[in-house]
Amino acid sequence: MPKLKNDTLIRALLREPTPYTPIWLMRQAGRYLPEYNQTRARAGNFLALCKNPALATEVTLQPLARYALDAAIVFSDILTIPDAMGLGLYFAEGEGPKFERPLREEWEIRDLSVPDPEYHLAYVLDTVRQVRRALAGSVPLIGFAGSPFTLACYMVEGQSGSDFATVKKMLYERPDLLHHILSINATAVTAYLNAQIEAGAQTVMVFDTWGGVLSHAAFHQFSLAYTARVIAGLKREHEGARVPSIVFTKGGGAWLESIAAIGCDALGLDWTVDIGTARARIGARVALQGNLDPAVLLAPPQAIQREAGAILERYGHGSGHVFNLGHGISQHTPPEHVSALIEAVRGLSGSYH
Amino acid sequence: MPKLKNDTLIRALLREPTPYTPIWLMRQAGRYLPEYNQTRARAGNFLALCKNPALATEVTLQPLARYALDAAIVFSDILTIPDAMGLGLYFAEGEGPKFERPLREEWEIRDLSVPDPEYHLAYVLDTVRQVRRALAGSVPLIGFAGSPFTLACYMVEGQSGSDFATVKKMLYERPDLLHHILSINATAVTAYLNAQIEAGAQTVMVFDTWGGVLSHAAFHQFSLAYTARVIAGLKREHEGARVPSIVFTKGGGAWLESIAAIGCDALGLDWTVDIGTARARIGARVALQGNLDPAVLLAPPQAIQREAGAILERYGHGSGHVFNLGHGISQHTPPEHVSALIEAVRGLSGSYH
Repeated sequence: MPKLKNDTLIRALLREPTPYTPIWLMRQAGRYLPEYNQTRARAGNFLALCKNPALATEVTLQPLARYALDAAIVFSDILTIPDAMGLGLYFAEGEGPKFERPLREEWEIRDLSVPDPEYHLAYVLDTVRQVRRALAGSVPLIGFAGSPFTLACYMVEGQSGSDFATVKKMLYERPDLLHHILSINATAVTAYLNAQIEAGAQTVMVFDTWGGVLSHAAFHQFSLAYTARVIAGLKREHEGARVPSIVFTKGGGAWLESIAAIGCDALGLDWTVDIGTARARIGARVALQGNLDPAVLLAPPQAIQREAGAILERYGHGSGHVFNLGHGISQHTPPEHVSALIEAVRGLSGSYH
Repeated sequence: MPKLKNDTLIRALLREPTPYTPIWLMRQAGRYLPEYNQTRARAGNFLALCKNPALATEVTLQPLARYALDAAIVFSDILTIPDAMGLGLYFAEGEGPKFERPLREEWEIRDLSVPDPEYHLAYVLDTVRQVRRALAGSVPLIGFAGSPFTLACYMVEGQSGSDFATVKKMLYERPDLLHHILSINATAVTAYLNAQIEAGAQTVMVFDTWGGVLSHAAFHQFSLAYTARVIAGLKREHEGARVPSIVFTKGGGAWLESIAAIGCDALGLDWTVDIGTARARIGARVALQGNLDPAVLLAPPQAIQREAGAILERYGHGSGHVFNLGHGISQHTPPEHVSALIEAVRGLSGSYH
């Protein structure tokens, strides 16, 4: 494999010096791009696109053709694992993801088993390999997975719930059952991320999208403990290079210290967190990734420059910052606003390095 | 007016000694109670119930007939103010609140004016007076309003949005317009809460339901600054008694210090916050209200006792704690689970006082 031409992201995640602040965007290959919508239409639907390595590779590369991004992220979905477990992932038009067979009975939970990534998730690994070849060392490729708890939310609720009543009821009434699911998920996520690393992912990110709906105590017991198992089980090196890990807990601003302590290299921050305060709290231990409110990209370029500049200034001088949004990019974002953001970060960040 | 027989809530809010930890529940008069659903059916719908002082009084008192609660809260809605401004509040069946005439044009925003509570919101004040008479000093009556920013979210979006793109776009593109709305809302909320106090509310609470969707900087400029104006404008005494104020910002756990500094007597905590840590951070300045995850009430009584006990223990010894949920009670709560919670708090809390 060729050496990375632009290793700014990897260096920033390892808190090594960089000439500027690298940037990539969560969900950068997505519905705000007309070329993405065209490819998705060719695939038929979102899930068919995920499962078609050639087309998934195509959409992974689309934002890199438009923008001077410092990383690619494999086009996939966090719910590929429960789908591989046989729960039957589908997307109803205009709604979020759903499962045909959510976990309702104790025997269904006891029957769960860890999918073999090389078999059940071969399409994702194929995409990783194809993207890695196509990138030819231009920028690093990010692999990802959902956190064990976030996957369990969907597996138990059957869909994204507004109050997560079903999974929380299980948490308080039958913690043993939820721990069983989480334990299997942790093993599955670890194997899946390691398979992505072996297929060519040069850094990996765990999305704990729903950990923030838990109480302080429940978050630590039912979400962070299992994300920690995943991080502990990851390959730290591949092809002679360090493979940094990133953990993102939406709504986890109160818990940055304990998340930073699980052994990951970087923390993703949602937009509610002041990145200057976060750096003072945990910047000596981990890199920070974030954290512009995606809604800023709906405002004109002048506002985008101002708000991006404010985040760079709050982080301050030195390495260890990866610029990103605090959540996935909105489908309503005008593509030229993304250019404005990337130019602002590239133009303004040099003086902090 | 008769002296309060049970002033435990007021004393706890003022951090004065109490024999036990008082308890009330956000949305305690609501759809989990069959008697509430009957009265609502008689009224026709939720909004008609809010606007009928006799029936609103009836449902306000229903949870007190069932449970040994330490307070009543006037049955109403946070959106009465924008409705009184002429935006046309309505509730589509099975959906959240909506406005017929959300603020879309600059002239509509410039045309906004502060409603006169005694005229436009007389039905709420009538309810406050009727409830106060019916309570006959048994427990205190809580008045409430939405925060200026939370009201603005609904006024600009026209409904509860999942990403609040419209109001956030205005925030970043035309902050002057949003500041204009917020300034009028702050004046309106202050006048409305003072009118509730004069009508008989013995403590008042500001619900900042959506402040937590903002970035750190935007929260302080666009939400907290205006809640602070409200608190500064409130009557501190009425009928010779202190009228404590409570501010609740859902998702505001990172900002407890700055919220506690605006001059309110107590902070509501959502369930994600560890109440022990919160007390260490701000317990010397304000009382704390909360913060059981409403989902715990879906689990069996044994789990409810355990989780309620954990919160009492985390708060620890001494006054200044009002037990509550961290958000409104779920409509799916079995009514007998509320009994279990109140008995647990009453039974366990004495040893901390």
